[in-house]
Amino acid sequence: MRRKLDMTTETHCWVPGATRADGDFPIQNLPWGVAERSDRQGEPRIFVAIGDSALDMAECAGFGMLAGLAPRIEAALRMPTLNGLMALDAADWTAARAHVTGLLTSGAHSIEKHARRDAVLIARASLKMQVPAAIGDYTDFYASEFHATNVGSMFRPNQPLMPNWKYLPVGYHGRASSIVVDGTPVVRPHGQTSATDEGPPTFGPSKLLDHELEVGFFFGGAGNAMGNRISVAEAAKHLFGCVILNDWSARDVQKWEYQPLGPFTAKNFCSTVSPWVVTLEALRPYCIPGPSRKEGDPAMLDYLRWDNDFVVDVTLEVLLASAAMRAAGTAPTRVSIGSFKDVYWTMSQMLAHHTSTGCNMRPGDLLASGTISGPAKENRGCMLERTWRGTEPITLADGTERRFLQDGDELTIRGWCERPGLPRIGFGECRGAIMPAR
Amino acid sequence: MRRKLDMTTETHCWVPGATRADGDFPIQNLPWGVAERSDRQGEPRIFVAIGDSALDMAECAGFGMLAGLAPRIEAALRMPTLNGLMALDAADWTAARAHVTGLLTSGAHSIEKHARRDAVLIARASLKMQVPAAIGDYTDFYASEFHATNVGSMFRPNQPLMPNWKYLPVGYHGRASSIVVDGTPVVRPHGQTSATDEGPPTFGPSKLLDHELEVGFFFGGAGNAMGNRISVAEAAKHLFGCVILNDWSARDVQKWEYQPLGPFTAKNFCSTVSPWVVTLEALRPYCIPGPSRKEGDPAMLDYLRWDNDFVVDVTLEVLLASAAMRAAGTAPTRVSIGSFKDVYWTMSQMLAHHTSTGCNMRPGDLLASGTISGPAKENRGCMLERTWRGTEPITLADGTERRFLQDGDELTIRGWCERPGLPRIGFGECRGAIMPAR
Repeated sequence: MRRKLDMTTETHCWVPGATRADGDFPIQNLPWGVAERSDRQGEPRIFVAIGDSALDMAECAGFGMLAGLAPRIEAALRMPTLNGLMALDAADWTAARAHVTGLLTSGAHSIEKHARRDAVLIARASLKMQVPAAIGDYTDFYASEFHATNVGSMFRPNQPLMPNWKYLPVGYHGRASSIVVDGTPVVRPHGQTSATDEGPPTFGPSKLLDHELEVGFFFGGAGNAMGNRISVAEAAKHLFGCVILNDWSARDVQKWEYQPLGPFTAKNFCSTVSPWVVTLEALRPYCIPGPSRKEGDPAMLDYLRWDNDFVVDVTLEVLLASAAMRAAGTAPTRVSIGSFKDVYWTMSQMLAHHTSTGCNMRPGDLLASGTISGPAKENRGCMLERTWRGTEPITLADGTERRFLQDGDELTIRGWCERPGLPRIGFGECRGAIMPAR
Repeated sequence: MRRKLDMTTETHCWVPGATRADGDFPIQNLPWGVAERSDRQGEPRIFVAIGDSALDMAECAGFGMLAGLAPRIEAALRMPTLNGLMALDAADWTAARAHVTGLLTSGAHSIEKHARRDAVLIARASLKMQVPAAIGDYTDFYASEFHATNVGSMFRPNQPLMPNWKYLPVGYHGRASSIVVDGTPVVRPHGQTSATDEGPPTFGPSKLLDHELEVGFFFGGAGNAMGNRISVAEAAKHLFGCVILNDWSARDVQKWEYQPLGPFTAKNFCSTVSPWVVTLEALRPYCIPGPSRKEGDPAMLDYLRWDNDFVVDVTLEVLLASAAMRAAGTAPTRVSIGSFKDVYWTMSQMLAHHTSTGCNMRPGDLLASGTISGPAKENRGCMLERTWRGTEPITLADGTERRFLQDGDELTIRGWCERPGLPRIGFGECRGAIMPAR
């Protein structure tokens, strides 16, 4: 899984818009998603994003365009979620990707001149995107040292990082039912909050609503039997692909409830994912050996150590627009920008640690990094850090200040990869607008 | 939902063994389960336990024995999990129960003389029981004040109960994939443990493997839309039924990992449920107003207060047998006995709090009480408490001592309800034997 140039870079794609320099979805990306077509409502299908279009895999199968693929792959691509494809293995994912590349480029399998080309290549903007998999379990980690140190210093000034933090990827089980796709409104949650650490609390709408800039990744391949561990090197083979994830958080609720069993209702009301799953194969050219360790960091225990381990350099940008800005058509204000490479724990380590007890994983399970922050102020991935608990408010383009999110605000996270000599590949958007408490 | 005598008490059931005084499954119980018949492997079906038998609902439907039930109920009873039945409402659950009562008693709908009676009434011992529902999300609470105080005093001697504990039902999201049914072996998990609070840790098999005596309850009825809360009074209508649950825990792993985001791998390797879901309707005669509050306990916040709230008096017994005892046929040693009535937080409160942020529940979601302990030493629901962190070992019938669970040990939890003038109804068993670490 070391950095390696992707040979498909030179391939010519005939789809309009696929070679735009600022586009997210060139032929080198080919992320998988699930959507409803406007003419096939209630019938979600698998698509591949390409330029401003998306390829309808079920329709391709119907027209015989998947001929040559193994029947198990074609069957998986006809399903209403990505779970079937995720349940196959890396060789099958490569075969599916290579086949789609062939359809969209100028070789022997090209569908450029196919009579049914317009029936399978749909305008992306017309699609109603869905959460791409039936997520059995969702687990959220805490993999950024910058984030853990920043937040820890606010909640526990004497001991920002717990003694365990550099030995294991701290994580917790999250709520799968409330994972929604890009664009779904977020209702401001109620909860118990207390002005003091000792109480008494009151119940009402959260006043400290926050976003968390994260990357999620889907488990793929055969699930491990309960009782069996997945090694860190094997774990890399189970990384199907990544999405942007916003783990919306009610900070005032979290502060009062989180001891001793961790965050619960402060995180269970909504998590938003971007709709297109960017595969590890597409991300490979942007992988970097690592993460780097500082002097004084403890040695990894053997089950978390892998000489070929890697992080991915995904630039992550958070944008915020007030209701007034949206109404006026004002461009959103950038709140932060950072990179997924700035994590202490890798995806492979998170997955290996998750199964270290023999916990069984299932295709479609979603794991996430936790908030990704970097060394600079502008790299901080949530409002709690970015405004330092509200003491350093951000000024939006309309002149108003933000300490935390307000009703009517729309928050957008974007992610993309760039490297000299390679085209940009992107994740699309992960958006949510805040609705008043009910 | 106040205590009320169940009129079906007087009904005569013709099924052999159904009126045995020490049986779990008289006509007043009628719990739902899912199982494979030995002659229908790979084809799970819904059953109702009665005496030493179980009624095959799909087979009943095939022979027209469900005629008169609404088609949606019959359709739900033909499904391979209980999720369809759980998705209906309390009136439908009552109708289904009344219909089954009619089949198994001497009235007009009795199947006692039906030609296909032996085709639908199967020996329970021949069934391979399954986890009764596809569990979308699993949440574990911490609802016993005795347990929270005991454990808290070990982990945090200065502050056994956190300031939040009496204001909200503390809980955390658990792992759904590793929920297994009665009888499934439990592989001793690996994990990071540390002799000191500061580390460094080592990785290896857990030495402090424990059980947790809990009651689980399934969410039923229409799920709430994301953003909408369920009130505590409404919550009671969404309680489909209860099971015994053993949330196996690696205490040494838990101690090192749990700060600050709560238990994670220490709990994700296995949780065992008893196979028969005892409905709230069957439990109603054993419900008691409450729980009682002590002087000095704070007032409930409004969203958790309901004058008709209740606890259920389910006697819960934990039995332990070593490998040697099992081989010799020695009866297991009782480790503890307590009651589900000894909780501080009710099922309705746990569910209302869970949705207080607008978190959406789905039929089949499983919530659990957390370890149930009572005031006396014999009421302590886990080894950690029962042996007071290993300082007061238990002596088994074979003369060996236990501080925590050993390889080859089999732990069994039983639960039942009794009340003068009413028959005993029971939950069956929730068993697991410890396999060596892999």
